[in-house]
Amino acid sequence: MTDIVTELQARIKAEGQNLGDGILKIDSLINHQIDPALIMRCGLELADRFRTLRVTRILTAEVSGIAPALATAVALGVPLVYARKTKPVTMYGPVFLETAPSHTKGIEVQLLVAAEFMPPGERVLIIDDFLASGRTLKSLIRIVRGAKSEVVGIGAVVEKVFEGGRDVLQKYNVPIEAVVTVTSMENGTISFD
Amino acid sequence: MTDIVTELQARIKAEGQNLGDGILKIDSLINHQIDPALIMRCGLELADRFRTLRVTRILTAEVSGIAPALATAVALGVPLVYARKTKPVTMYGPVFLETAPSHTKGIEVQLLVAAEFMPPGERVLIIDDFLASGRTLKSLIRIVRGAKSEVVGIGAVVEKVFEGGRDVLQKYNVPIEAVVTVTSMENGTISFD
Repeated sequence: MTDIVTELQARIKAEGQNLGDGILKIDSLINHQIDPALIMRCGLELADRFRTLRVTRILTAEVSGIAPALATAVALGVPLVYARKTKPVTMYGPVFLETAPSHTKGIEVQLLVAAEFMPPGERVLIIDDFLASGRTLKSLIRIVRGAKSEVVGIGAVVEKVFEGGRDVLQKYNVPIEAVVTVTSMENGTISFD
Repeated sequence: MTDIVTELQARIKAEGQNLGDGILKIDSLINHQIDPALIMRCGLELADRFRTLRVTRILTAEVSGIAPALATAVALGVPLVYARKTKPVTMYGPVFLETAPSHTKGIEVQLLVAAEFMPPGERVLIIDDFLASGRTLKSLIRIVRGAKSEVVGIGAVVEKVFEGGRDVLQKYNVPIEAVVTVTSMENGTISFD
């Protein structure tokens, strides 16, 4: 177990809150307030786990994927693209569009990536803050495949195994890595593997 | 003129697009695709300009403020908070709430910061991707002041002087810095000072 794994587990134990229904609040670390040193080390850890895969591009989804994806992109030295949830006026031309249900917002969200920033033939690493149900990640995979690029790995800062995302994504046959893995949130606890 | 200033000007000249109505598209650098090395250097540049001000916290607004604010927070070694535009289920308890018109979305947006992450007595540096009309930044200033903390500086990656944001913010009497300053976007050009 590397130091960042131990450290992140300790920080989640100290500052994370189990809000019930499988919702883990880590707003003091990643999702509202960001500890920059911690998130950069998480990015380095994810980069190290995928370093042999010749990643050429990272894809994430706004909002909370941006920080860990940027940290990973810095460590791998590759560009980062974040799927937008609404179309800004600066986005025109063809876009890849998928929908995904948002766990923490309770609504269906759109994920938009301008075709100009998801060219064919790329080796794409998908990064997000959480691996939960896997549905956001699945939509990002569909965007990459629609662009005729290859998903070479999927990385998250925190995996909640009991939500089954890993099983959903297993069929894509790519390595899936999480910095820390939460195995149970029963009875208000937060347990790691 | 430091290297990052020259480099960012060159990149904006090469890749930026003047979409008219004062809208500068730099989606290949910051706002959709992110060049991680470039954005980290922009953050370091902003950090250097505010380094003597004993900043204790950085505040930005989602979405496109996150990357430059994280880069600045890494360089200064202080926590970053990003104002949310919608309330996630993990946000509860008192929040500071302001509204601001979005230039690129054409709608009024809410900016929400949980009180737990904006305590009183902080020395806050506000960072965003653009300094344009100054209205988003003004809303962030109001959040900091509402929290009984002090705004010690305002930084942006790109300032568009012709939109008058600097004048709007001048009354707060804090240093305002931009990595690069666009002086004119007349007739499809992009001119720097």
